Amino acid sequence: MGEFALIREHFAQMRCARLGQAALGIGDDCAVLPMVADAQWAVSSDMLVSGRHFFPDVAPDRLGHKALAVNLSDLAAMGAKPRAFTLSIALPQRDDAWLGQFCAGMDRLACAHQCELVGGDTTRGPLTIAITVMGELPLGAGLRRDRAELGDEVWISGSLGGAALALDVLQNEKLAPAQALRDSLEIPEPRVLLGLGLQHLARAAIDISDGLVQDAGHICERSRVGMQLDWLRIPKHAALGDADLAMQQQCVLSGGDDYELLFCAAPENHLAIAALGEQLGLPLACVGQVEVGERVRVLDGRGHEIMVRQAGFDHFV
Amino acid sequence: MGEFALIREHFAQMRCARLGQAALGIGDDCAVLPMVADAQWAVSSDMLVSGRHFFPDVAPDRLGHKALAVNLSDLAAMGAKPRAFTLSIALPQRDDAWLGQFCAGMDRLACAHQCELVGGDTTRGPLTIAITVMGELPLGAGLRRDRAELGDEVWISGSLGGAALALDVLQNEKLAPAQALRDSLEIPEPRVLLGLGLQHLARAAIDISDGLVQDAGHICERSRVGMQLDWLRIPKHAALGDADLAMQQQCVLSGGDDYELLFCAAPENHLAIAALGEQLGLPLACVGQVEVGERVRVLDGRGHEIMVRQAGFDHFV
Repeated sequence: MGEFALIREHFAQMRCARLGQAALGIGDDCAVLPMVADAQWAVSSDMLVSGRHFFPDVAPDRLGHKALAVNLSDLAAMGAKPRAFTLSIALPQRDDAWLGQFCAGMDRLACAHQCELVGGDTTRGPLTIAITVMGELPLGAGLRRDRAELGDEVWISGSLGGAALALDVLQNEKLAPAQALRDSLEIPEPRVLLGLGLQHLARAAIDISDGLVQDAGHICERSRVGMQLDWLRIPKHAALGDADLAMQQQCVLSGGDDYELLFCAAPENHLAIAALGEQLGLPLACVGQVEVGERVRVLDGRGHEIMVRQAGFDHFV
Repeated sequence: MGEFALIREHFAQMRCARLGQAALGIGDDCAVLPMVADAQWAVSSDMLVSGRHFFPDVAPDRLGHKALAVNLSDLAAMGAKPRAFTLSIALPQRDDAWLGQFCAGMDRLACAHQCELVGGDTTRGPLTIAITVMGELPLGAGLRRDRAELGDEVWISGSLGGAALALDVLQNEKLAPAQALRDSLEIPEPRVLLGLGLQHLARAAIDISDGLVQDAGHICERSRVGMQLDWLRIPKHAALGDADLAMQQQCVLSGGDDYELLFCAAPENHLAIAALGEQLGLPLACVGQVEVGERVRVLDGRGHEIMVRQAGFDHFV
């Protein structure tokens, strides 16, 4: 089976390739997407490399989910509604069973968010997945990193540290983590509905992909503010209960890969945000506030700053 | 220097990252692009893998050019106007000199087409480049592969076979090809202005990236027609003059990587198309016609069909 048959028999068969939102989908030089009046396009691209972003032997349906999830998470952090994506993939060899599962995992998530697969590229090479997602954003909307204001409350969705702990168990203890813990690493849930709900409630947002302190720092840098976070109020993954404090802090503050949202909102929206969390069944924790300054300070229960050795992940440090 | 410094000091410094067309460019979770009334988005993604799509030691400025060129070529084949692109790149290590040249080559081409770099991803891994381009297309326009009609004339821009001959010289003769020949492989010119000019003159188009017979076959398959091409009228790269007929036919009919356009147009547009070629200073050759059938037939000077052993390139055959 050649490249074109592979596209026809796997990618073009996905339900998300047939959502019918695109004017023209897979199979031409370009996909063609309709423009929408009074809206803008939000666009994001992420690349996942085998052995770096995922274990080569990860279950392929989970990899398919995660590759799209990390992209949808960027749309969520902007408050955009997913519309379409392209998938470029380098595969070391043809493996129909692997590819079938990979597509199934991706398809489930794409369909759940009505995000249409409209094109891409398939080639041979070291396993690498590059996705570009496109979403719709009302004119004037957008949870930009540079819009946090002094006095804003800082919120975090879900819980942090699970993905980093799961990675540590897999890498350093060479054990299989408990299923719920493993799930937080392998099948993160992009907070798309939360992002949409926050369009009129929050000012700034980011998804926590590289580590809480580092990602929060991006908002500080772009908004020219500081941020004070309260360690005790930061939501921690349940599995971290057994870990010592140093491990907890490393996973929660520097771990990354959780794809929860951190967002800044005016205090007068506190109750509306809490109500949104209830409505979505998603815990939202108010963990601190935006202050004068230029960096993120995490304070322990006695008001002392916790020293963070590594703010987050950087591929070239 | 880490990942973020690398983005700030290389990618964000490119002139094409500051064209100001995007509402929000590099540095947030998503780029934000304006929608345009009465238009559609054309979107295409291509991935280039080291050792497969290019030699690992190719000049980095040429690689930067080509990585974007093959994507712009897809917009050209749809007749779309380039607007923006994202760049995801996996790099085996930090190499500022290499990256500076890579960006310079890409920047020149992007600026020439006013195509804005709006985002992407930078990671460590085997050298891999994944680009997604976005272009603008008037409502109802679009040189789709499925719109060729019986009796249409078939045209080809520029000349074919140069890239394949250059590759053969590099791979099999282990020699440096003459500069003009090498250029056809390493710095192909995407036919963007031609595509735009053809919006109202042609019905169907494709860029010849994988081989003439294979790519023409995609139009036949999607339009449910056949195609008859006249070997003598197909424009051949000048450097092929010294090659024997078998080599000529292999490079021109199956070679690929030339990124010229093949398009189908009504015969009544013949003179207007010839005039467009004059205006652009780009040779356009009428090489055959669309006929009843389902495949591409290339006829020699005596009307006999030339047997094509390999229709084109397939990464998984």
